[in-house]
Amino acid sequence: MKIGIGPSTFAQEDKTPLELLQKAGVTVVPNPTGKRLTESETIAYLSGERLDGLLAGLEPLNRRVLEAGRPYLKAVARVGIGITNVDLSACRDFGIAFSYTPDGPTEAVAEMTLAALMSLARELEPMNRAMHAGQWPKLISRSLKELTVLVVGFGRIGRAVATQLRLLGCQILVCDPFLPSSAPCEFPRIDLLSGLAQSDAVTLHASGNEILLSAAQFNACKPGLIVLNSARGELVDEAALVEALESGRVAKAWFDAFWSEPYTGPLQRFPQVLLTPHTCTYTRRCRLQMETEAVRNLLRDLNLAS
Amino acid sequence: MKIGIGPSTFAQEDKTPLELLQKAGVTVVPNPTGKRLTESETIAYLSGERLDGLLAGLEPLNRRVLEAGRPYLKAVARVGIGITNVDLSACRDFGIAFSYTPDGPTEAVAEMTLAALMSLARELEPMNRAMHAGQWPKLISRSLKELTVLVVGFGRIGRAVATQLRLLGCQILVCDPFLPSSAPCEFPRIDLLSGLAQSDAVTLHASGNEILLSAAQFNACKPGLIVLNSARGELVDEAALVEALESGRVAKAWFDAFWSEPYTGPLQRFPQVLLTPHTCTYTRRCRLQMETEAVRNLLRDLNLAS
Repeated sequence: MKIGIGPSTFAQEDKTPLELLQKAGVTVVPNPTGKRLTESETIAYLSGERLDGLLAGLEPLNRRVLEAGRPYLKAVARVGIGITNVDLSACRDFGIAFSYTPDGPTEAVAEMTLAALMSLARELEPMNRAMHAGQWPKLISRSLKELTVLVVGFGRIGRAVATQLRLLGCQILVCDPFLPSSAPCEFPRIDLLSGLAQSDAVTLHASGNEILLSAAQFNACKPGLIVLNSARGELVDEAALVEALESGRVAKAWFDAFWSEPYTGPLQRFPQVLLTPHTCTYTRRCRLQMETEAVRNLLRDLNLAS
Repeated sequence: MKIGIGPSTFAQEDKTPLELLQKAGVTVVPNPTGKRLTESETIAYLSGERLDGLLAGLEPLNRRVLEAGRPYLKAVARVGIGITNVDLSACRDFGIAFSYTPDGPTEAVAEMTLAALMSLARELEPMNRAMHAGQWPKLISRSLKELTVLVVGFGRIGRAVATQLRLLGCQILVCDPFLPSSAPCEFPRIDLLSGLAQSDAVTLHASGNEILLSAAQFNACKPGLIVLNSARGELVDEAALVEALESGRVAKAWFDAFWSEPYTGPLQRFPQVLLTPHTCTYTRRCRLQMETEAVRNLLRDLNLAS
């Protein structure tokens, strides 16, 4: 059997997932380009190599691409949680088993969100920058114990973030209109505008592409809000955010997910905005967990499980 | 009664401590210079104003200065934990009651240590810097759950740091030769060199001025060590650290305490060193707690407690 590997970073830090494939006796055909495959490259890859299985990153796996994999392609295992690049009904139609790794990112995203909030609250970046320039800026900062944080979206990641932040002393409010009122939630629930009016920070963990924060929300928020977005750029109206940063209505922000990636845009000129390039899940531990899980899923779907 | 206030930042963010003084009916005479008083300025302040009590920062309260406060000065309440600027035996000799606020900083220092370690482990600063320059650097970083951290000094702060880091998934080792072997310690204890050889990070919470980390220690450490120092600059040999950073033996560091302050020195030229200007306790919450506690201590020692 021949297995393709989409993500160029696969097993880069730890060879264990590759060794699992080798032990299973499959032939591994790495992504020949070393970067994210385009539609035509993916078609050439699948059909040219006659791949039986694919460990998938974010390459476009639409109906046309999946059809090109026939009759060889029997299983796609996504390394990660996002599945917007995969046409699941086409998978069904062509008899291609699909799997992903929904639990892998939770812990890494929650940790990065905490790291970003602490860095912003404790003024690490501005003090560090000034000290490297020979200054001695003794800024008064804020402890996590002084902050009320509104968690928008109470799925796996939102729940992990809320739990971790409360452990360190934050007050937590939860906003999730899709969470049934009977669902267990150990934090006070609130609607978005009321939550913004009484929170020092808001952290987005919602799915979908609906804009959640725009001018109306920024006008209703407590002045000096900290905005954290590790979920999706589309959840925030970029122009409204820029205006809120300029007016000081939003004091600080952290973005790890953007409207288009790689990101270049107006947030680059705000020193009070912490930027990371969609790397919440880029820890050695998280990569290894997701890659190993995806390999196991793929081998299972190809009936090669040990 | 007349009360002097040494620290120029006193009640800057929250007026509660000043209001406590006013309610007690004392006359408040703020530090006239708006910055840290020198020896001669402190003498002029105490004797010129005939102060009954002093809320003290880091002004030099040696025997000569304290003697100049006689016969009026009855109580000194240090706002903070460090007491190296106060001659305690002179206080005793002159019948001046002395107090300080040893518990105040613990929580704020532990939080800042966590913030600094997370920022370094998750590569926040280099990714942020590169993205503000228009790049898209997807660095693989390390989760706290991948790290073994050696805590040197198991007093109030070391214990709080160890507990908090373990909560977030670090493996903890404790090194404290002054801790009796019978003392309760829920973490494995180890000597310094063995601890360094198996740790990814070391965090210093020792008192005293003895050098703990010098060339011998850096040569014995696991390559790529992260050094965290919120305690005292003197605990680390600066030249040896610079050499270890240049060789990569020490991969990253955070310093909040320095050999002389304000700090300007060779660490400024290492982008992998996070620098903060002795601001671990500079949160609104910590300042308020320490200032309120110091006011209560002072009023008690002046028999003005409510």
